[in-house]
Amino acid sequence: MQTRRATQTNLGQCSILDRQKGIDVLFNPRSIAVIGASATKGKLGNDVLRNLVESGFKGRIYPINPRGGEIFGLKVFRSISDIANDVDVAIIVIPADYVLSTVEACGKKGVRALVIISAGFKEIGHEGQELEKKLVEIADSYEMVIQGPNCLGIINTNAPYNGSFSAGTPRKGRIAFASQSGALMTGILDWSLMEKIGFSKFVSLGNKAQLDEADFIDAFGRDPDSAFILLYIESVVDGRKFMEACRRVVPDKPIFVVKSGVSVAGARAASSHTGSLAGSDTAYDVAFKQCGVRRASSMASLFDVASVYDDMHLPSGNRVAIVTNAGGPGIITTDACEASGLEIAHLSSETIQFLKESLPPAASVYNPIDALGTAQPEEYALCVEASLRDENVDSVLVLLTPQAMTKETETAQILVDSHKKYPNKPLIAVFMGGNSMVYPRIVLTEGGIPVFDFPERAVHAIAELYHYTVSRDSLKEELIPTFKVDKKKTTEIIENVRKDSRRVLLGSEAHSIAEAYGIPVARIRLATSSEEAILLAEELGYPVVLKIASPDIIHKSDVGGIRVGLETPEAVKAAFLEILNNAKTHMPNAIIYGVDVQEMAEKGKELIIGCSKDVQFGPLVMFGAGGIFVNFLKDVAFRLAPMTRSDAQALISETKIGSLLKGVRGESPSDIDAIEDTILRISQLVTDFDEIVELDINPAFVYEKGKGVSAVDVKITIGGR
Amino acid sequence: MQTRRATQTNLGQCSILDRQKGIDVLFNPRSIAVIGASATKGKLGNDVLRNLVESGFKGRIYPINPRGGEIFGLKVFRSISDIANDVDVAIIVIPADYVLSTVEACGKKGVRALVIISAGFKEIGHEGQELEKKLVEIADSYEMVIQGPNCLGIINTNAPYNGSFSAGTPRKGRIAFASQSGALMTGILDWSLMEKIGFSKFVSLGNKAQLDEADFIDAFGRDPDSAFILLYIESVVDGRKFMEACRRVVPDKPIFVVKSGVSVAGARAASSHTGSLAGSDTAYDVAFKQCGVRRASSMASLFDVASVYDDMHLPSGNRVAIVTNAGGPGIITTDACEASGLEIAHLSSETIQFLKESLPPAASVYNPIDALGTAQPEEYALCVEASLRDENVDSVLVLLTPQAMTKETETAQILVDSHKKYPNKPLIAVFMGGNSMVYPRIVLTEGGIPVFDFPERAVHAIAELYHYTVSRDSLKEELIPTFKVDKKKTTEIIENVRKDSRRVLLGSEAHSIAEAYGIPVARIRLATSSEEAILLAEELGYPVVLKIASPDIIHKSDVGGIRVGLETPEAVKAAFLEILNNAKTHMPNAIIYGVDVQEMAEKGKELIIGCSKDVQFGPLVMFGAGGIFVNFLKDVAFRLAPMTRSDAQALISETKIGSLLKGVRGESPSDIDAIEDTILRISQLVTDFDEIVELDINPAFVYEKGKGVSAVDVKITIGGR
Repeated sequence: MQTRRATQTNLGQCSILDRQKGIDVLFNPRSIAVIGASATKGKLGNDVLRNLVESGFKGRIYPINPRGGEIFGLKVFRSISDIANDVDVAIIVIPADYVLSTVEACGKKGVRALVIISAGFKEIGHEGQELEKKLVEIADSYEMVIQGPNCLGIINTNAPYNGSFSAGTPRKGRIAFASQSGALMTGILDWSLMEKIGFSKFVSLGNKAQLDEADFIDAFGRDPDSAFILLYIESVVDGRKFMEACRRVVPDKPIFVVKSGVSVAGARAASSHTGSLAGSDTAYDVAFKQCGVRRASSMASLFDVASVYDDMHLPSGNRVAIVTNAGGPGIITTDACEASGLEIAHLSSETIQFLKESLPPAASVYNPIDALGTAQPEEYALCVEASLRDENVDSVLVLLTPQAMTKETETAQILVDSHKKYPNKPLIAVFMGGNSMVYPRIVLTEGGIPVFDFPERAVHAIAELYHYTVSRDSLKEELIPTFKVDKKKTTEIIENVRKDSRRVLLGSEAHSIAEAYGIPVARIRLATSSEEAILLAEELGYPVVLKIASPDIIHKSDVGGIRVGLETPEAVKAAFLEILNNAKTHMPNAIIYGVDVQEMAEKGKELIIGCSKDVQFGPLVMFGAGGIFVNFLKDVAFRLAPMTRSDAQALISETKIGSLLKGVRGESPSDIDAIEDTILRISQLVTDFDEIVELDINPAFVYEKGKGVSAVDVKITIGGR
Repeated sequence: MQTRRATQTNLGQCSILDRQKGIDVLFNPRSIAVIGASATKGKLGNDVLRNLVESGFKGRIYPINPRGGEIFGLKVFRSISDIANDVDVAIIVIPADYVLSTVEACGKKGVRALVIISAGFKEIGHEGQELEKKLVEIADSYEMVIQGPNCLGIINTNAPYNGSFSAGTPRKGRIAFASQSGALMTGILDWSLMEKIGFSKFVSLGNKAQLDEADFIDAFGRDPDSAFILLYIESVVDGRKFMEACRRVVPDKPIFVVKSGVSVAGARAASSHTGSLAGSDTAYDVAFKQCGVRRASSMASLFDVASVYDDMHLPSGNRVAIVTNAGGPGIITTDACEASGLEIAHLSSETIQFLKESLPPAASVYNPIDALGTAQPEEYALCVEASLRDENVDSVLVLLTPQAMTKETETAQILVDSHKKYPNKPLIAVFMGGNSMVYPRIVLTEGGIPVFDFPERAVHAIAELYHYTVSRDSLKEELIPTFKVDKKKTTEIIENVRKDSRRVLLGSEAHSIAEAYGIPVARIRLATSSEEAILLAEELGYPVVLKIASPDIIHKSDVGGIRVGLETPEAVKAAFLEILNNAKTHMPNAIIYGVDVQEMAEKGKELIIGCSKDVQFGPLVMFGAGGIFVNFLKDVAFRLAPMTRSDAQALISETKIGSLLKGVRGESPSDIDAIEDTILRISQLVTDFDEIVELDINPAFVYEKGKGVSAVDVKITIGGR
């Protein structure tokens, strides 16, 4: 058995530790050279240097430009080699053509980390790609890390330093943000200044030639100034490395990601059911799920969550108390909670008693607590503090509408006091209104209470934080089970298929591989004559199924290539000839290997178990309801291999058929253990044999508990070398 | 046959026309009395009068208070009868105890419409409910309409007049807004002033004692100043009336609704599958769908849609062009479009050619059009105008991020010019950023272009407007089919069940009703002895099914109360005795009527067709996949009866099994016409017999096209009188 983390990832020249050391320098350099610094306003080399100087960086700054002179009162060096002292980080803002020689010079100078802002690399096509490759080779040879190229730069608000050409520097905060889009980053930075959202690190990933999102996730994970990680990505460089980094970090810090764009996997061939059912984005969704990352549907909602997290502790559960001065908003909030997986808390009898004694008789003392339109600040305080004290409550949402007797600002102030008394339980305010709420909102924000204008956003934010805690807690160190299998036989079969220049395995070959991996199959043998078919039928036992064996015929039943329920030698002979004849009539050019003779499995509940290959994340295992329903019900779920037993269990539970298999009224439970084993054995098979690009067992029959499963039809496709 | 609209709704004393005339007066009165006007600041009667005076109402205002005197320079009358001139509208702001006599006095005075702000009615319990009932009786007898009681009042920004105690008056605009929550309304008003959102009418529905949401929908529909209708409701008073009003209005004006709260129907008994599968909110969802109303998930999104609609024409289709100066936001927007049912337009070859000639070579001239980070206002104008001209484009989204060379304000200005040139195609701006976008956003807003800070909200708004056009166009005047049925026989059976003090029909009774309504059933007869069972089996033809006949035994198979596939008289006799014995053993107290003998239907595809009763909307017909899958797959859809053939077709198409029935590879199509007929006949049955509260056909078998359906197990429950 191996643990999840044992899977080694190819990190090229620069090991994971070296990269992290490099990022440490990148985050906290003692000295920075700006190569391409310029005195001309409007040039990026001018913007970067100005940002660096104005950001209050305490270390040494070395502007570099062949023309020399002085910029912003700093001496300009003609070349990095002219600098006498050490240089930790070089920010490179020069045309692409000069970058290679500059990087070489940086390496010789002993620079530890490069921020390459220059564009003109992979993003412009083949030529740029070659240039980028050389760039990484040089940097690796000097053990330098590279951020970019083609990026906006880097900002650390704690160092502090702004090594980017951004217009403005973000506020200091605890959000670490990395983005694959520089322009988006610019927009977010500008917006965050207005919304008063703070960041610890602001990293533009650019082309991710060397350092990628996974490296920065690890670095953010180790960074004491970062508490919450936000990512905008369009793709990941290395799926497994990404997942491993997230698994390391998520137990301590939430990671929220906006992933946009249709992945390359969208172009995946869809000759298998599994392939066609896995959407282009499925692997990302599954990967995020398997490593505890929460996927956000929009940038705005991402920052709602961040702002609540920034102020509040995580909720210890999903039970929410709602305090309101109006019924309608209370109902809206209740609906929103239920839709987001939050529960309306059942208040303790002490709380209810206390509220009954404290509030006017017309008030509702059950959750939502409606303190009525006349509610004064003191009444809000009573309700909110009773909720904060109540052990049945995990977080408190306070709604306020501006009614005739409402004292908005005083209520805001009293909430701040209540929060100080009970700082450990999340307290979120929704002050509905416009101009009359401007000042009260400032009071709340300054007092460390997140405030929203409509309930839905507040509920969404608290729900996301709750779901993070669930994801986090579900990440366990668990072993990947390893079954005893016949790997040698599988290798032989695949080698034979290759020799035959085929990619689609014959039924007999696919079934043999399944057997070699301990998956119970309906046995299948290839017959090349009707006599042989009869002999095989007698060996397997009647009744049997006959199927055309041809790599060119995928949909066998369409060409009359299948005959089932054959009970006698005569029936087998007739079927053999008929099938061959049908195949020749319908597909005269198909290469035919003969006819497969298969034992007839006893009918059970129909399942589909399969696997397709994702470009970024590797083998993607599918489980669901099989048979004719597959394409209509699409009752399937996915997990990435290799899988733990918990993964297999979660995979089954995620489908509707999963509940059905547990046994329902009038039916005995199915053999779920056997399904788990089959899934795990397939997971092992596709992990062992990277060349398997598609695998479909459709249908697999499952029988009553204790009676196992049977793979009735196994299809396997291998990829080119 | 009858048309949809022929269904008459009980409107009490006041007919639909009278009510609309009353609302016309309410919207545009020539004179208003404020009964309970007060000189004391902080009193509602003071707020209302001040709002009315300050709102610039051109008609006469009569403050009324027994103390007399003068308020805001107006003479105070001691009683409404003291006023010499006519009074159109009376706004009542006095304690509940005095309301009845005041309403009587208003009636005598000839007042046409009442706005009753006073609380203390239905919302306080039984006593208040009685008071409210009397209130309506008096008003009806004088043909006065009532808004409220327990409401905030009414505002018409065009009259103009503010007859409410709101803090502030909304801006003038084209949104008509009615809300069941006064407090929410207060919050929204305050917020709308800050967000610069305008309203035509602002109506607080209160307790809806007489005028309800449907009356106001009709009135908004006829109101030339209102173009867009927004509702916040927690329930509707009369489901059918609501749907009819919406059907009248939706062809001309979009109606968007936020419906919150779990309806009373949530408490519905769930002894049938149909009942348990219909969630508490299903009827609302279905009703909105059937009358073209769009349901919004949040208040905020409602106003996003309104703001786009306010400025722009409706999109004529779902094809969107995206113009951007950065790739990332373009991708995010593309994703959001696809998730919302919008298409990324395929630009015409002329547009592509034009863009190729006009933009730098590195720009992307396919949609999203990426004019690069260097894009100048003129380049934006080129791209945007080319998109606006392109016949393959239905709306244009313009994204802008603040990059080094970006001219935000000039770009905003040039977009305004482009919009003026092509005013008929929606143009929406997303200017991402904060402080640097404040002024450009004002330029856009003033120029009539809606602008958002993140793409998702903009996409959502345009998608909602597109979906409105689809809903609107799907509303057709179509006849409700009426089949020739045996209503008399059905009445007789139901009468017999009532005489027997039962609510659950025996299998034989339920099957007979289905037969009477022309639904093909597996025939069923009640046997009270084994001899009779054998005779019936011979009449129906072997094989037969025997089932226990008892109103007390719902889950027959659980008690061994079903035996299938009985081929001989001996088998029938044995089964008869065994079933009786099992029933007596398992449920000794059950009343047993005998054993049902049923013909065995040939096995077909299993369906469920049923009906439950919604408190507000009446019979809710369900269709879906039947058999053991019902509770696990929940592949069912709903429509309210009475239904048109299009409704029945839509109902079938909405399920996954619906696609399967059309026939898939290797399978012949099922008899969908027969399913439609069965659904329509059930729709007719439950419309004819209001007392049927639950009906389940589970399973119904459907056979190949032309071979019909067979209702295998029919269950019917009737309600108390």
